[in-house]
This record gives sequence, structure tokens and C-alpha cells, in this order.
Amino acid sequence: MELSSKKLEKAVNEMAQLPGIGKRTALRLVLHLLKQPKEQTQFLAEALQNMREEIKFCNNCNTLSDNDICEICANPKRDKSIICVVEDIRDVMAIENTGLYKGLYHVLGGRISPIDGIGPSQLSIFPIVEKVKAGEVKELIFALSSTMEGDTTNFYIYKQIQEYSINVSTIARGIAIGDELEYTDEVTLGRSLLHRIPFEMSIKNA
Amino acid sequence: MELSSKKLEKAVNEMAQLPGIGKRTALRLVLHLLKQPKEQTQFLAEALQNMREEIKFCNNCNTLSDNDICEICANPKRDKSIICVVEDIRDVMAIENTGLYKGLYHVLGGRISPIDGIGPSQLSIFPIVEKVKAGEVKELIFALSSTMEGDTTNFYIYKQIQEYSINVSTIARGIAIGDELEYTDEVTLGRSLLHRIPFEMSIKNA
Repeated sequence: MELSSKKLEKAVNEMAQLPGIGKRTALRLVLHLLKQPKEQTQFLAEALQNMREEIKFCNNCNTLSDNDICEICANPKRDKSIICVVEDIRDVMAIENTGLYKGLYHVLGGRISPIDGIGPSQLSIFPIVEKVKAGEVKELIFALSSTMEGDTTNFYIYKQIQEYSINVSTIARGIAIGDELEYTDEVTLGRSLLHRIPFEMSIKNA
Repeated sequence: MELSSKKLEKAVNEMAQLPGIGKRTALRLVLHLLKQPKEQTQFLAEALQNMREEIKFCNNCNTLSDNDICEICANPKRDKSIICVVEDIRDVMAIENTGLYKGLYHVLGGRISPIDGIGPSQLSIFPIVEKVKAGEVKELIFALSSTMEGDTTNFYIYKQIQEYSINVSTIARGIAIGDELEYTDEVTLGRSLLHRIPFEMSIKNA
């Protein structure tokens, strides 16, 4: 695409580097910015740069944070004896949005996937084992995606902490709230039958 | 959406101001930037700010430009006696991409639309009339969208320059290349019959 301005072209090209943003979308976004007050572009640029330059990873749980220790880990109201193991920062956000979890997190940064060249050493697995060894942890909840790689990662971590007497659980797999039975795949439906829970429990937490 | 970092939240909120970018997409884009080298964010931020601060509108044709006169108007190879009237900067880009037009442009900045409160005075119509009066122009091509507002704008401009002996044309409306006749709306099909062209001409320009 030939543009009449080199500056516009540069802005469009940089914007089009973002995932899922093609040249046309980038142009639409950049032209939108041109129609808005100059401050909007300035705020956007500054927010992005500040974020990229100054954001940190929490020393304890590995999630994104403004300080060395994130707000979740620093919160005295959170139960430090429960740790939920997740792959990604986005998983932390998803679980936080439920408002039903009051423990801490540990972000692995991915899952074991030999096909992508990701082994246990590239993930933040060692710190979990250390925490368990130190006796700080009563329960470990695996909340990884239910894929081959997620299961492998769960099992790898489980093997390392097996000898310590803590509870290890995984989040429930089953039919999503609002879903119809007949459209559910048989593996999920099968698992939801095997791992059925007492009816009273399901009413209590609804 | 509660995020663990205020800086991240600010970047996401600014990103989500862009049209068609929701909070989730904004988060995805911002997290992508975090995985890339710091330079990428810096380049993006600088390109956007440079573009917004320094870009100009061409004094002659009103399109986006790095200088007072855009590259198209400054190009000695372009035919200055033909002016194509368009609504928007994006239309200039679209026509430039065809590589078939060698005249100049004039960007109106919109179309007459009383319902949106846009009258002739808000558009860059006066400069066209001035150019025609000055005798610089041999042909004026209307390339506005074929809507009620586009037609009104065409007609308004036409009325102002009617008395001068120049050619005034509009781009051809008809069935798009590759389209099937049976799926074309009857107005377009009807027009394409009325405005049929000699067969030899259609081969020559193919």
C-alpha cells in the first residue's frame, strides 16, 4: 500500500506488527487517531512506553506487577497456604474475575511442550517445588489447560512434590454452566459423570 | 477487568479507546508487546507520536502529507489539469493503488449530509471552484460514494462550476470484475446496461 505520507506509512507499519492487525486495520486505527485530539495519541504512546519500560514480574508468583511483589501476593487477606498453578498471566486475570479464589498464584510462563522446544527448565517450576519444600503450602491447585501439554506439565510438577504431604488438586472439568448435554463432547460428558459431586455441595456454592 | 498492574491497566485502557478494539483485544495486544523486545514498543509509540504531531494536510489537495505540498501534487509527472474529487484520504489511497490514475486529487473531507449536520461550508468545496475559475482544470472526476449524500455533494459542486467549460465526469458504476450477474442488485445491473461501453474499449483497457 502506497501512502502519501512517510510518517503515516511508518505509523501504519508499526501498528500492523501487532497480532491480528493487518495493514488496512492499522490504517483505520491511525486515521482514527488523526481525527482525535493530539492528547489521545500522546496518552496512548506514553502508556505503552511506561508499561513496557517499567512493568515487573512479581518475585513471588511471576505475574505482572508494578512492584517487586504483586498486589495479590502482598495482600494480607489472601491465604498464602494455597497456590494455584497457571500457565499465563491471562489465566490469573480470568480466575481473579470469578472473585471466588482467595489464595495465591504461581505463573509457569507456559507448559511443557517438546514439539515447541519448551522443557521444564524454561518454565518457572523450580520455585514451586522450593515453596512446597519450605512447608509454606497446604494445597496446590493445577489450573492448566486440559491438553496433552497441560497434563504433562501437571504430572511433571506432581512427581517433584509427591513426597511432601500436601493436597494437590486440579480444577473441575465438566459441562459449562448453560451448556446443553446433547452438544457436549463425550470425553467431557464422561468425565463429568465420573467426577460427579454430591448434590448438596452443588446447591451450596451456586 | 481487574489487572494486577496499574501500568498494564492504563495501557490496556488507552488501547481500548481505538475503534473496534475491546478490552480483551487490547489486553492481547499489550501482552504481545511485553513478549517482544522493548524497541518494538518504543518504535510504535514514537511512530504514532511523530505522525500525530508532525503530519500536515496538503495545501493544494487536502490529503495527508509530510510537507506543505503532498508528493502527488509536487510530482511533475502528474497531469495537473485533471482533478479527482474524493471524500476521504482513504479514497486517494484506494485509487493510487490501482496505478491507473495520473492526475491530481481533491479531498473534500466528507460529504454533504444535513442529517449529520454537515453542510457545504464544512467541506473543502470552495478551493475546487477557485481552481476551476483560475482555468487550471480541464476535467473534474467525481469519485464519491454512490449514496444519496454522495450524489447531493456531486450535484452541489456541479452547480457551482457548470458555467465553466470543463469536462465533468463520474467514475463508472457497474458490475464488479469477477461478480456474477444473477447476484447483482437490479439498480447496478440496470445502470451497467444504460452506461454500456463499446466492446473494443473494454478490451483495450483490460
